[in-house]
Amino acid sequence: MGLSSMRVRTQNGPSDLRAIWWEDDVVKAIDQRLLPERLEIVAIKTYEEMAEAISDMTVRGAPSIGAAGAYGMALAWQSGVDLVGASRVLKATRPTAHDLFHAIDRMLSIGDGLVEAAKGYADSIAEKCRLIGEAGNSLIEDGMKILTHCNAGALATVDFGTALAPIRVAHRSGKKIFVFVDETRPRFQGAKLTAWEMVNEGINHAVIADNAAGYYLRSEVDLVIVGADRVAMNGDFANKIGTYEKAVLARENGVPFYVAAPVSTFDPSLRSGDGIVIEQRSPDEVLIVNGVRIAPAESAALNPAFDVTPAKYVSGFITETGVLAPDELAKMLAE
Amino acid sequence: MGLSSMRVRTQNGPSDLRAIWWEDDVVKAIDQRLLPERLEIVAIKTYEEMAEAISDMTVRGAPSIGAAGAYGMALAWQSGVDLVGASRVLKATRPTAHDLFHAIDRMLSIGDGLVEAAKGYADSIAEKCRLIGEAGNSLIEDGMKILTHCNAGALATVDFGTALAPIRVAHRSGKKIFVFVDETRPRFQGAKLTAWEMVNEGINHAVIADNAAGYYLRSEVDLVIVGADRVAMNGDFANKIGTYEKAVLARENGVPFYVAAPVSTFDPSLRSGDGIVIEQRSPDEVLIVNGVRIAPAESAALNPAFDVTPAKYVSGFITETGVLAPDELAKMLAE
Repeated sequence: MGLSSMRVRTQNGPSDLRAIWWEDDVVKAIDQRLLPERLEIVAIKTYEEMAEAISDMTVRGAPSIGAAGAYGMALAWQSGVDLVGASRVLKATRPTAHDLFHAIDRMLSIGDGLVEAAKGYADSIAEKCRLIGEAGNSLIEDGMKILTHCNAGALATVDFGTALAPIRVAHRSGKKIFVFVDETRPRFQGAKLTAWEMVNEGINHAVIADNAAGYYLRSEVDLVIVGADRVAMNGDFANKIGTYEKAVLARENGVPFYVAAPVSTFDPSLRSGDGIVIEQRSPDEVLIVNGVRIAPAESAALNPAFDVTPAKYVSGFITETGVLAPDELAKMLAE
Repeated sequence: MGLSSMRVRTQNGPSDLRAIWWEDDVVKAIDQRLLPERLEIVAIKTYEEMAEAISDMTVRGAPSIGAAGAYGMALAWQSGVDLVGASRVLKATRPTAHDLFHAIDRMLSIGDGLVEAAKGYADSIAEKCRLIGEAGNSLIEDGMKILTHCNAGALATVDFGTALAPIRVAHRSGKKIFVFVDETRPRFQGAKLTAWEMVNEGINHAVIADNAAGYYLRSEVDLVIVGADRVAMNGDFANKIGTYEKAVLARENGVPFYVAAPVSTFDPSLRSGDGIVIEQRSPDEVLIVNGVRIAPAESAALNPAFDVTPAKYVSGFITETGVLAPDELAKMLAE
């Protein structure tokens, strides 16, 4: 970990941390389900425990899930387990994150020395995010008000963030910025995780109900930056449910809308967003909030975890190789 | 109360109920803060208690607030209190609802016999809602999937509803319909109140996170019907925060978007939506959910209660006099 790491305010002042790392033959990770109430580090000792940690969202965010997949394969390799069997279990945890399949397939193709390979994979994600931060910083002017959705921060990406990386770099370079944090129902990743990262980094921000994003896009927001779980060759992309709404509202109000993602999130096998499978999660995530049921016992709920935003709403993709327009993306991926 | 009343499933089967009514020298109202967990009727004995009941959202929804204002004036008149003073207190409770000012000014101008006048005012709201239901039913075809935001139901409108009135009439006339119920953060009026009305009425529905409305507008929704807190002469209107988002997304996806409101919600003194004051409510409504703080202690929140949707997104207004296009509205109001 270098100077670029996530700054975490602890009782003894800020210290650097990652979302997930290898330490003494096990994987350590921040339990993201407990934030912002408390910062707890869990030790993950087997690939089955890693599959569980991905399924139950102890670890979340496409690039962090990718690192978790690689580390899970490293745990399987370390204990001499059949790697193909382990890969199937790990791949079955979350259907939408392309990074997960990418990371697991890479470990499978390497096949040996997977602890070092997984460490290298996680380090390369962190480095890509640092470069995304540098590239995206060029889009941010002093005084800008920026809206973001869900958590595409250091927690989601091993370190530094995708959508939050440019915001970190802009803030550390002395630009005065303000961040509108969509709370991001149903799981509140914005209110819980992005706000926690903003507090730790000392960045001015306010949490808003997702419903208020349109109001502020119409009146105050200068720039939108979100992450992506999967990007198709034509620039359509899947991200946390609600992203599509914010993209349409940004274009309607002439607000630039950028997607920050490492190239590993781009799926060359997907021609368009039509091929992206949308995960339906438990209705209870909508119906039960902090242990209290909000709707009548007889009411059902529908809970798509992601939506697909067509490329036409995207001003550009912020990647480790620079900022690309959607049509430049297809060209680059074809090379 | 006639056959048109809200049907409420009680232990002894369905019974008819209103949101607010006069009974034995006091006002009775459903405490809407306790739904859907329990159905509790409160007795409101003074105009100060009525002001409190409006402020703390025991009674909510523009037309129900209008009736509450009229009944509050009746309570003041009954106890011989200065009516102008009482009107000031009652008007200071909620800044956005035009119906409130309309109802209070009407009682002030009548000046005497206010118990009967307030009863008549509430009855006329219920009758207008019944007519809105009849008019709006013409827009609903068998098999349609309809999206609604917040609660513009019987609870919000004394009886029957505005947005929910056409849905009630369509269902009672035998049309098979399905309702997507936006949960409506931050106060969850959709999940709590609209879903409760749907259950009582036996209408197929599912609660969705507000973030999922765009996803379903892009794929499944045939029609959107919402209520309004205030409509300007040009057809711009204020409604619960998030309405603007759904309107933009409906137009983007070619889904008809209707606003159901009695003519009393139309404000002849407002040329456009620019003049509508947006109430900012407590940040705690966003930050604290079911008693648990979701964001870090250091995080602020912004909480606009309403937004303004420009007339260009409105397919039509469903009123007690029929369905009107936005440009017909100005013409009708000028007459």
